[in-house]
Amino acid sequence: MIGDGEAETGPLATAWHSNKFLDPVGDGAVLPILHLNGYKIANPTVLARIGDEELDALLRGYGYQPYLVEGDDSAAVHQQLAATLDEVFDTIAGLQHGARDGGDTGRPRWPMIVFRTPKGWTGPKEVDGRPVEGTWRAHQVPLPAARNDAAHLAQLEAWMRSYHPEELFTPEGAPLPEVVDWLPAGELRMGANPHANGGRLTRDLELPDFTEYGVKVSAAGETVSEPTRVLGTWLRDVIKANAANRNFRLVGPDETESNRLGAVLEVTDKVWRGRIDEVDVHLGPSGRVMEILSEHTCQGWLEGYLLTGRHGLFSCYEAFTHIVDSMVNQHAKWLKVSRGLRWRMPIPSLNYLLTSHVWQQDHNGFSHQDPGFIDHVVNKKADVIRVYLPPDTNTLLSVADHCLRSRHYINVIVAGKQPQPTWLDVDAAALHCARGLGIWDWASNDDGDPEVVLAAAGDVPTREVLAATDLLRQHLPDLRVRVVNIVDLMRLQPASEHPHGLPDAEFDAIFTTDRPIIFAYHGYPTLIHRLTYRRHGHEHLHVRGYKEEGTTTTPFDMLVLNDMDRYHLVMDVIDRVPGLARRAATLRQHMADKRVQHREYIRCTGEDLPEVRDWRWPAS
Amino acid sequence: MIGDGEAETGPLATAWHSNKFLDPVGDGAVLPILHLNGYKIANPTVLARIGDEELDALLRGYGYQPYLVEGDDSAAVHQQLAATLDEVFDTIAGLQHGARDGGDTGRPRWPMIVFRTPKGWTGPKEVDGRPVEGTWRAHQVPLPAARNDAAHLAQLEAWMRSYHPEELFTPEGAPLPEVVDWLPAGELRMGANPHANGGRLTRDLELPDFTEYGVKVSAAGETVSEPTRVLGTWLRDVIKANAANRNFRLVGPDETESNRLGAVLEVTDKVWRGRIDEVDVHLGPSGRVMEILSEHTCQGWLEGYLLTGRHGLFSCYEAFTHIVDSMVNQHAKWLKVSRGLRWRMPIPSLNYLLTSHVWQQDHNGFSHQDPGFIDHVVNKKADVIRVYLPPDTNTLLSVADHCLRSRHYINVIVAGKQPQPTWLDVDAAALHCARGLGIWDWASNDDGDPEVVLAAAGDVPTREVLAATDLLRQHLPDLRVRVVNIVDLMRLQPASEHPHGLPDAEFDAIFTTDRPIIFAYHGYPTLIHRLTYRRHGHEHLHVRGYKEEGTTTTPFDMLVLNDMDRYHLVMDVIDRVPGLARRAATLRQHMADKRVQHREYIRCTGEDLPEVRDWRWPAS
Repeated sequence: MIGDGEAETGPLATAWHSNKFLDPVGDGAVLPILHLNGYKIANPTVLARIGDEELDALLRGYGYQPYLVEGDDSAAVHQQLAATLDEVFDTIAGLQHGARDGGDTGRPRWPMIVFRTPKGWTGPKEVDGRPVEGTWRAHQVPLPAARNDAAHLAQLEAWMRSYHPEELFTPEGAPLPEVVDWLPAGELRMGANPHANGGRLTRDLELPDFTEYGVKVSAAGETVSEPTRVLGTWLRDVIKANAANRNFRLVGPDETESNRLGAVLEVTDKVWRGRIDEVDVHLGPSGRVMEILSEHTCQGWLEGYLLTGRHGLFSCYEAFTHIVDSMVNQHAKWLKVSRGLRWRMPIPSLNYLLTSHVWQQDHNGFSHQDPGFIDHVVNKKADVIRVYLPPDTNTLLSVADHCLRSRHYINVIVAGKQPQPTWLDVDAAALHCARGLGIWDWASNDDGDPEVVLAAAGDVPTREVLAATDLLRQHLPDLRVRVVNIVDLMRLQPASEHPHGLPDAEFDAIFTTDRPIIFAYHGYPTLIHRLTYRRHGHEHLHVRGYKEEGTTTTPFDMLVLNDMDRYHLVMDVIDRVPGLARRAATLRQHMADKRVQHREYIRCTGEDLPEVRDWRWPAS
Repeated sequence: MIGDGEAETGPLATAWHSNKFLDPVGDGAVLPILHLNGYKIANPTVLARIGDEELDALLRGYGYQPYLVEGDDSAAVHQQLAATLDEVFDTIAGLQHGARDGGDTGRPRWPMIVFRTPKGWTGPKEVDGRPVEGTWRAHQVPLPAARNDAAHLAQLEAWMRSYHPEELFTPEGAPLPEVVDWLPAGELRMGANPHANGGRLTRDLELPDFTEYGVKVSAAGETVSEPTRVLGTWLRDVIKANAANRNFRLVGPDETESNRLGAVLEVTDKVWRGRIDEVDVHLGPSGRVMEILSEHTCQGWLEGYLLTGRHGLFSCYEAFTHIVDSMVNQHAKWLKVSRGLRWRMPIPSLNYLLTSHVWQQDHNGFSHQDPGFIDHVVNKKADVIRVYLPPDTNTLLSVADHCLRSRHYINVIVAGKQPQPTWLDVDAAALHCARGLGIWDWASNDDGDPEVVLAAAGDVPTREVLAATDLLRQHLPDLRVRVVNIVDLMRLQPASEHPHGLPDAEFDAIFTTDRPIIFAYHGYPTLIHRLTYRRHGHEHLHVRGYKEEGTTTTPFDMLVLNDMDRYHLVMDVIDRVPGLARRAATLRQHMADKRVQHREYIRCTGEDLPEVRDWRWPAS
């Protein structure tokens, strides 16, 4: 039932077009009932005032066969609605039969009902001389002064008595047997229907062993791979392994291939019930991939799917995930509240893969740069949100495996699609992800007593921190550097704030309480301060990240524009480690020069400096 | 021109229904051209595959008269488009004439054009044996290997030569005179059209003196008023004063009256070109108030209006402003970039009034609680964003006056609509807002040497801090308390981070560097830490705010659930002021008891404790 407000999930929304993505063979059916009662809080609704002809055209244009049920005589409308429901249920069954047994692969014209009754129906007709039933005034408390005004109170009593309570209740106030006798029992009760308590129906996904999909790494950074492309091969086999159970879907706004998850299309189609032309590939009348260029609709589809106990992943351009901020809020609130209800079983997590992210903008530019979805999610209750920034392909596999096994969370995974070094072999990746963060001893030379900690969260920041470490090793070989990598962002919060929070003693041991920490972070730097402000070492923490500087430019230039490039990180180290400022003044100057050279070079060639593009972590 | 992706601003969106809100007498016209080229990045578009009949029904259902221009022969299509444009321009002129001179008050059926041409039109037909022109493949670089592959390079050359550059350019590469001679000159050039550089056309609003609308306050908190209702009277006169210039609009999702700005309807209508029934009030074919229950559409309308140099205010339920997060991002980015272009003149600010906020949830509940829009906005560049939390009616007037005078900002104002004490008379309010924050000496007894600072940002937090101060005064009269109030949130940031940032010396003087600061904040507490983490006193800062605890409950219970009530604030003071823990242990226990009593009382009565409801700041 769709109310006739016009909010994003309402009758004016894109979601009407979902019928082009519904498979009558494998999926159920949806019967939209547009309750056109004419008014919102203070205004008529748009669809109530466009006339029957335009409304009919609109609903047919959405691909539906509209049925009108209309009236203000309760008994007649009830009969009319019942008869119409009988008819449309038969229609739906016929369409499903045609697709399932008759081989129809086209798009059915599904029925829908326009249900037009007065707003505030059976409520007070008039209050204080102004019409209420059938107007927007019925949206609010119709008799606001019943407490103090005798006339209002009398009208309230007359209104309540109009329902003949004496025919419905015992003198003690219990419903009479004939009122409740006919109610369905057990799971046929609406509230006890297992489909409305999806966790009861959830079956675990069959998950192929992700370690078998890992990239071989004999030395850190030696192998280059595209994280999401490799993830795609694992997701392909997730889809295959669960095909019979039909309980996994991948949704996204036209980006499965752009986000390099295309391997999934080797085993399934993008579901499409519109016309299919000869030129099309990977479209089919059924399929586990759902793509529509409306993030709202993707989110709505996936939420509904999860709520019925099944599993899914939403892959999205990072910047545009903000489009669903408000919907995410409501899902997070639902998770929080339902977690406290004993009869509600946990449902599969809402998993986001944010890719095509802020740090790679060769083609898109400033409009595509916003890593703030993480900030938005982190405002929600700690017990329902998780954020992961896998630094490479193998850690991405481990994180994805973990998220698809989890329940009742909102998991945000941020990972790039561009070729990048793989730092950890798959076993080390699994351990690193289980830990959530850790010292990368193979990149550190601190001997347990660092002079500076270089920390990174995110794939691009990790590479820059390692490149900066390499520069420091070359130019200041005696400087004791500790490299720390963070996959699970919530490890940074105190244990009192988030269940994943690292105990203070462990945090202090890793980050130190008195040495400068230069932290390269994928998103807005303030988030790291926000997560760590209670940590002992916080005053020594210096964070680099995205600060709303960007355009369509080279990958390294994005870093330079935001002062998170390897050269700037080295300068930050020099500025903050006591005693280095004077000793390493020449190196600092050299680093600043590099940034100037970089700008000149990209202006002339459109490409990053060869020493940047070709940089590799030195073999030990 | 609307591309045929389906994003929130695209062809599947609510915005099509804007024609119900366009006044053909006073407004201009919009000619939507749906460029139906068939594909997105990797998929067909929905509207390209629903068939002509359904598409026609959809567009008629949206209220348009569709015209089809279709083909793949350039010369023919150009002629066809030109002829169609001539026809629809005449149609538009006719409709405007009918409304302006013929007295038609109905809704015109405006024309629109479906422009159907191949995607990648005139590009390579095939590449590597696969069709490109007329398919989704044309969305990307069609000849990706031209750099290394001789065949691709040759095809690139043939493609470029197909445009006959020798007929268009001189040998030096300049366009031939006959190619450019006919171009319009001066302001007729598209890029020099003043309507596309709205700041050039902006005229200041005539703003009535807001101090004349202020609530009389002879003693702090003595007068109770509804902030947005009083603001409504000033906005009414803003609309009246600028009626002739037609350069101010109020937009919102069906909430002008719910947000208590209804006074504006004394002088204007809510514009409505749908059918108007006898029962309707304040609807009319023209009017400066625009209401549709689609925050996206409200935002889109207002952005367009501002970009053409005019002024407006978007009033919205606080929680649901998140619906437009992604659109706000793009506007903020536009403001940032255009600020750096010398020829772009500043445009009027994008002003939000967030009301019906998190702390008053008698009717709505958890779904309506999210004060995080501020957090979202604060991620954008400091030079384009401003956030104001006026503590009462008079400060709201001052802030609103300031925002409507400003240029090229995004101003977020958060203010409640419920009756609440007015703390400052209108002159003091103007001074307080100009300062942005300040010590309220009339509420303080610190004699220049506070033992604790009680700070507040937001109307409800301000009241709680004052109530806590009152309790402290009664029970610990010797405790030296300083009360600080913050209107302009950006004052909290260091001057190096935001142009409004308070210099450290001033901040230290007001907040101290060594005394506990108990800070009651309207939104998520982490934001205050984030803004102040570089301040000297930060380690002594203890923030209370919304922590995602709430339901449909009494106003005071919202505070108790989130530990921001007066009793808890007193407990926080006792816990943090050295020496108080033991001395005030009985008081602390008494405060904890009050919270228990509160819960019992609301459970029985549904109302807050009389001592809470009736609390007033004591007359001095």
